[in-house]
Amino acid sequence: NKQNQQLHPQDILKNQAEKWQISLTSEQFARKLDETDPLQHTRNEFYVPKIGTLPHGEFIDAADKSHTDPDKDCIYFCGHSLGLQPKRVRKSIDNWLKDWAELGVRGHVHGTNPFAKCDYPCIPALKTLLGAKDNEVAVMNQLSSNIHFMMISFYRPTKERFKILYEDRAFPSDGYAIHSQIRFHGYDPTEAAVLLKPRENETYIRTEDILELLKEQGQSIALVLLSGIQFYTGQFFDIKTITHAAQQKGCVAGWDLAHAVGNVPLELHDWNVDFAVFCSYKYLNSGAGCVGGIFVHSNHFDKQYPHLDGWWGNRYETRFEMRPEMDRDTGAGGFRVSNPSIHQCAVFAASLEIFEEVGIDKLRAKSKLLTQYLQYLIENEINQSSNNLKIQFITPSDPEQRGAQLSMRISGVDGKKLFNELERSGVCSDLRADVIRIAPIPLYNTFTDVYQFVSLLKTIKI
Amino acid sequence: NKQNQQLHPQDILKNQAEKWQISLTSEQFARKLDETDPLQHTRNEFYVPKIGTLPHGEFIDAADKSHTDPDKDCIYFCGHSLGLQPKRVRKSIDNWLKDWAELGVRGHVHGTNPFAKCDYPCIPALKTLLGAKDNEVAVMNQLSSNIHFMMISFYRPTKERFKILYEDRAFPSDGYAIHSQIRFHGYDPTEAAVLLKPRENETYIRTEDILELLKEQGQSIALVLLSGIQFYTGQFFDIKTITHAAQQKGCVAGWDLAHAVGNVPLELHDWNVDFAVFCSYKYLNSGAGCVGGIFVHSNHFDKQYPHLDGWWGNRYETRFEMRPEMDRDTGAGGFRVSNPSIHQCAVFAASLEIFEEVGIDKLRAKSKLLTQYLQYLIENEINQSSNNLKIQFITPSDPEQRGAQLSMRISGVDGKKLFNELERSGVCSDLRADVIRIAPIPLYNTFTDVYQFVSLLKTIKI
Ligand SMILES: Cc1ncc(COP(=O)(O)O)c(C=O)c1O
Ligand SMILES: Cc1ncc(COP(=O)(O)O)c(C=O)c1O
Repeated sequence: NKQNQQLHPQDILKNQAEKWQISLTSEQFARKLDETDPLQHTRNEFYVPKIGTLPHGEFIDAADKSHTDPDKDCIYFCGHSLGLQPKRVRKSIDNWLKDWAELGVRGHVHGTNPFAKCDYPCIPALKTLLGAKDNEVAVMNQLSSNIHFMMISFYRPTKERFKILYEDRAFPSDGYAIHSQIRFHGYDPTEAAVLLKPRENETYIRTEDILELLKEQGQSIALVLLSGIQFYTGQFFDIKTITHAAQQKGCVAGWDLAHAVGNVPLELHDWNVDFAVFCSYKYLNSGAGCVGGIFVHSNHFDKQYPHLDGWWGNRYETRFEMRPEMDRDTGAGGFRVSNPSIHQCAVFAASLEIFEEVGIDKLRAKSKLLTQYLQYLIENEINQSSNNLKIQFITPSDPEQRGAQLSMRISGVDGKKLFNELERSGVCSDLRADVIRIAPIPLYNTFTDVYQFVSLLKTIKI
Repeated sequence: NKQNQQLHPQDILKNQAEKWQISLTSEQFARKLDETDPLQHTRNEFYVPKIGTLPHGEFIDAADKSHTDPDKDCIYFCGHSLGLQPKRVRKSIDNWLKDWAELGVRGHVHGTNPFAKCDYPCIPALKTLLGAKDNEVAVMNQLSSNIHFMMISFYRPTKERFKILYEDRAFPSDGYAIHSQIRFHGYDPTEAAVLLKPRENETYIRTEDILELLKEQGQSIALVLLSGIQFYTGQFFDIKTITHAAQQKGCVAGWDLAHAVGNVPLELHDWNVDFAVFCSYKYLNSGAGCVGGIFVHSNHFDKQYPHLDGWWGNRYETRFEMRPEMDRDTGAGGFRVSNPSIHQCAVFAASLEIFEEVGIDKLRAKSKLLTQYLQYLIENEINQSSNNLKIQFITPSDPEQRGAQLSMRISGVDGKKLFNELERSGVCSDLRADVIRIAPIPLYNTFTDVYQFVSLLKTIKI
């Protein structure tokens, strides 16, 4: 409810525990949270892998699958990497295959989901998720390609202003894309790439440091290209404030929303974001390598930019006139290049239906509780116990500065060993160096998942 | 057999008719060709749309579906636009959905077709179809995007050499891509675009005219970018000769093989082609908007080119080390940008299996017969009849200079009306202006399809 939205999620949990007269750290509390969860039904929309079908073999001896029930759902905490399969995807694929079988090429404009317009059904839900206005969103290509198509238009370096500001620990593809664009324009990445780093002994980047850097170097920066949510630390950047500060200094502000879309509410139009790119296979649950998309602010619709053009950027109405010069579509649609893939869009549209039905605000409310609950249990049950295992969160503890994900630096025990033990106990998580990244997903994870995960952490012997 | 491959397809048909003592223009001849066709079984690999499921509604009054049997297979001649659905695609999609359901993110490296390598199973068949050596082929993006990624590396205009040679009637997306690249580099398309045109009163472009133009203007041309088979005229360019002549003049030679791959045998490596791009949804039958691909000649592997990079261009072995600088994969793989789409690759790989089983040489042999038979019947049964309808082929009549497609300029009757009548009689064809483009596809079309089509042309009243 409204009132709860003002409260810190820890206070909501505490109030609830008091009301129910149950300990915050009891299993009963987790079960009660699930029972009263208004989104409890959405888990049933997804296929949750069973413990028995997961490949423990990579990590442990196959003979040693002893202490877990293979028919139980696993604890799936990798929605930050690949979202689970929505059951309704099947129907959408069946429709496509039926149309293709019955209509052949005529399926381009006939049938249940005409191929030539199969990106369109994805747009309404995306507008809501991104906070976009008409024509500001297009579904096209994949994420890294979209970074390039956007940079071709929005990164216009000059001798005075040629730098790109991004994070030191940016996802490598973004770094490769940025370096290659800098080189393509004849500049040197060692001069042109400006990297944001956390302060010494801190794990994420302070907004004030970003603003300071923009103040100092802003006039030489052509483009600020950050991730909405940092893939490694889970930090949710203050997109509005940073965008404003960047633009005050004359920089273009673009955002990689791979880990933000479908995870946190976004208001890209109101925040005056210049452009953004995203993928659909993480929080949007559309399958490995599914189609990506772009956001372009309406401020830019009437301006002339360089483009790398393809026929799909032509307005639908005149596209098949095949004019010698392109009749560019309005806004983001004018950046499209190739005809949409029904393989991808059929799945994406089906998955997005769930977001339309549930709404991102409800998801975010539950997500904050889930992640806070996880943090609280680890702080209380692990870090304050006498076990060797200690966990440092490199993710901000402020719920407003993070999404679903918590990144946990493991100490006291070997991270890889802990990860393997979790894996064989039926927890699907992600390890990079000594950091385990997990994300309880409000659409399909439960409070009991979180409780059981922490119980495992407590009892696992390494 | 070997001997037949030397013969002109018209002679093969004639010899056959003599041997069987049947008239070349009889229905019996068509039936006998089908019965003795070594590829007759492959049609059963595909879903051929029924007359009754096709949308005649767009063209004719729904009440007027009288004289055709709705349960009969249509005559599908639009494989040049969207190939039919291979039945085995379903199994491949089912495997993917099962892996996703059971493995979640672990499906990236486990399961029947691990997501993170799902482009690899497509490579062996493509190498054969393209005539490519190891590492010369990558499956990525879609066609128009691939034109851009290739041009970023291979179109390096200088003041002295900045022009691009392509066809006047190139597919519009190629034209838009070329113009936008020219502009991006600061040149003017009206100066930099050199257009090949047929001679007056001719319909396709003579190789000698291309060579002449290269001789005259070659030293100012940076890139020759033609289609292997012209989408409109169906002309199969002499890729080897043109590539050689272009390179002699210091130009790079790139080819758009949208209409050539899976249609005609290609020997890109031996022909010394610099690069090529292709799509998978026409002759390769992989569904609307399915993934595209590139060919890069091994000559270029060790050279330094500008790139627009993404993490998928990193070698597989080190990709997840996420190094600050890319460790580029060898050859075409180093051009990849984003992680592959299992949605697309699962379908593409399944479809390509059929090509591996049948072999392009057998397909080409049948294709030449089908297309020649079509041409012969039209010349004899239509153009020499007293009907008003006259058909001019704008496609070369030399079988070596075309693939499956025949493009027919309609005169004597209204093209649009004829097209509509064909449509309602169960023929799926393609109309652009006064040209009907049809392609009998050796994998799923029959000699009887061709015979019946020409019978319809003879009897249709407009
Ligand atoms: C010759 C040619 N080039 C380019 C394209 C555009 O393909 P895409 O939409 O996959 O980029 C097509 C599509 O039909 C084509 O036939
Ligand atoms: C933040 C971020 N950027 C870029 C990418 C690369 O995505 P793609 O392979 O779809 O281009 C990813 C993929 O996980 C990502 O998380």
